[in-house]
Amino acid sequence: MSRIVTFTTDFGLQDHYVGTMKGVVLNINPEASLVDISHSVQAFDVLDGALTITQAYRYFPSETIHMVVVDPGVGTARRPILVTTEKHMFIAPDNGVLSLVYERESRLSVRHISAEHYFLQPVSPTFHGRDVFARVAGYLSKGVEAAKFGEEITDFVRFAAPRPKAVNERTMRAVVLKVDKFGNIVTNITPQDAPALFQSTPPAFKIMLGSHEVSDLKAAYAQGAPGQVFAILGSMGYLEIAANRASAADILGAKKGLEVGLIFEGAGVAAQPGS
Amino acid sequence: MSRIVTFTTDFGLQDHYVGTMKGVVLNINPEASLVDISHSVQAFDVLDGALTITQAYRYFPSETIHMVVVDPGVGTARRPILVTTEKHMFIAPDNGVLSLVYERESRLSVRHISAEHYFLQPVSPTFHGRDVFARVAGYLSKGVEAAKFGEEITDFVRFAAPRPKAVNERTMRAVVLKVDKFGNIVTNITPQDAPALFQSTPPAFKIMLGSHEVSDLKAAYAQGAPGQVFAILGSMGYLEIAANRASAADILGAKKGLEVGLIFEGAGVAAQPGS
Amino acid sequence: MSRIVTFTTDFGLQDHYVGTMKGVVLNINPEASLVDISHSVQAFDVLDGALTITQAYRYFPSETIHMVVVDPGVGTARRPILVTTEKHMFIAPDNGVLSLVYERESRLSVRHISAEHYFLQPVSPTFHGRDVFARVAGYLSKGVEAAKFGEEITDFVRFAAPRPKAVNERTMRAVVLKVDKFGNIVTNITPQDAPALFQSTPPAFKIMLGSHEVSDLKAAYAQGAPGQVFAILGSMGYLEIAANRASAADILGAKKGLEVGLIFEGAGVAAQPGS
Repeated sequence: MSRIVTFTTDFGLQDHYVGTMKGVVLNINPEASLVDISHSVQAFDVLDGALTITQAYRYFPSETIHMVVVDPGVGTARRPILVTTEKHMFIAPDNGVLSLVYERESRLSVRHISAEHYFLQPVSPTFHGRDVFARVAGYLSKGVEAAKFGEEITDFVRFAAPRPKAVNERTMRAVVLKVDKFGNIVTNITPQDAPALFQSTPPAFKIMLGSHEVSDLKAAYAQGAPGQVFAILGSMGYLEIAANRASAADILGAKKGLEVGLIFEGAGVAAQPGS
Repeated sequence: MSRIVTFTTDFGLQDHYVGTMKGVVLNINPEASLVDISHSVQAFDVLDGALTITQAYRYFPSETIHMVVVDPGVGTARRPILVTTEKHMFIAPDNGVLSLVYERESRLSVRHISAEHYFLQPVSPTFHGRDVFARVAGYLSKGVEAAKFGEEITDFVRFAAPRPKAVNERTMRAVVLKVDKFGNIVTNITPQDAPALFQSTPPAFKIMLGSHEVSDLKAAYAQGAPGQVFAILGSMGYLEIAANRASAADILGAKKGLEVGLIFEGAGVAAQPGS
Repeated sequence: MSRIVTFTTDFGLQDHYVGTMKGVVLNINPEASLVDISHSVQAFDVLDGALTITQAYRYFPSETIHMVVVDPGVGTARRPILVTTEKHMFIAPDNGVLSLVYERESRLSVRHISAEHYFLQPVSPTFHGRDVFARVAGYLSKGVEAAKFGEEITDFVRFAAPRPKAVNERTMRAVVLKVDKFGNIVTNITPQDAPALFQSTPPAFKIMLGSHEVSDLKAAYAQGAPGQVFAILGSMGYLEIAANRASAADILGAKKGLEVGLIFEGAGVAAQPGS
């Protein structure tokens, strides 16, 4: 039984932590196939972890086991959970890091992992990735049934992803979700939030980031002139602010959490999310 | 059918991009064996990508599929291509990133990947790594024949790697190709370019980098005295400037693209590349 | 025969080096299962490499092959060695990088790898990771017996890990072994060195780092108040200085090698390591 186990953590790659967790999985199931999604989630940043796993998991085959360890509460009463959806399984701390998975999936089972005989004893209060989560991933990958790990719960932690808000019928207030490796500024505006922007001939608009204004929309990065900053529908499904072969974030000094304003020059074109 | 798929990109490891591409490959072929060559190619730097894949691919087994995604033109008219050589397969944008592979391989077939039914629809204009290249890699790894993906072309993009130039019979002008993780300065001078330098008793020489002069040649890093900067034939097949347990690039302030002069003190010893 | 090969190096991930070594292993044994422990060992830092492999290897299944390449003496007379313990195999330069493995394992066989016909010829004097170590790992993973690679030796290089020293019966002098990705400061004090500290009701104590004083002990990171720096028994088995959702190393300006003082306020409670 060759099962895929993915890893999404804020552990970085400089220490032994990730390798050690992989050893634990392989010690239980040497045939497991291990794939890194990212170990560079911002430290302790549950929303960043949620964005990362949500973008990646749905491209993996059915029955993939996703370990998501962004766990500032390690060693406290926060529960380890095992989530099964129609096609995937997730192991994570119950701190909301799977919130965006919950948003996408209609059929969910969430269990409190309480079967301590699957853990590596004694459990270190500072490294459940090794002593709890990797162990459960290993046994799951060997075919142990989800129900063996604990009871279903309904009071699991979830948060709502930040959504853009309509200020008036021409103006929407949004936020920078993240800046990617290329310096692309990912906002939380989707085509559903601002359908007018993604029509074949969109109305005139301005996007405000701090003191900067962006009013061009491109379909591909390479359509931008050198040094030009423009809006583009990115591969994550969000409106991005980008530049051609350059970092828009560096040019504009933009960071995660920065407020973004979207203003349509014409009337009556903005959608009403959150209104 | 367990096939190896390698990844060489400028995507970095901080985002979900690499994990997502791996999910796409595994969703088609869960038995594929995935290997990272590097995701730290300099952003948008096609020559750096070319150097990276060329150094690594030939050590892999026959039939390995190499995905090379350094793709500043993503979403524009630049073509995705599928290259087969005697022993290997490559999937990349047609922007020259395989130029150094073309130089090494005598038998080449280059195809324009046009069979869009293999793509993930709708194709994002900003992430062909996911929607085009990883999909083709997945199907190739399952045994779909190269010819199914598109027609052979002959007008593919290729550039010549920068070669040292003889200025006169004692002097050669070269360039820094890259600085590696240890601060070793990799020039584009090969033993074929300057055979005299690699004789058992080489003539006196000077290597000029900016205002610095290097005139020692060592066979191993540890032969250098503390703080000493010396020349050495590196594992990539190029002359390097290095230091023992220190970064020659930091000591000399050298970067990619810096001009390098090689001057033989005696007469008539330099080769005549480019002459 | 599917065998696991792990990699622990100071090569970083920005160049082709790691991918190339993996190609060499797979070219010999395409069925090998490759796992990174870390490629971010501090450059040339044999102790850091020793800490990294020692923390990780014992979690892997029996028969795992561990390649450890932190090798400032590459190309000189230092020997490549093959170490077999009761459950694991190690390939490394003979520079002490396996010293902490030697400390943990009672049954050891250390061989000088001298069978050059297993090497990739010509062997580059600057990249034994590719031409020597990866080749041996590949053949080992195919089932070639350890004895085929060379004779047993007893004069292999080993160093003693830095241990805390009792200054008097109330005071112990220790050192910072490393700072991890989260900024946790890992000292070399174990529960065996200072059992009083890990009693259910430990006596009053002070830990001195530079001009800073730490006198709280917590069981989990999240028990710390914002900005508070405290001591904690970490997952590596050492006393750590940490902060809740913050970098203790940044707060205290601490680095590897910094002296650490542990002072018990009561009398007669310190252990006597090194005395």
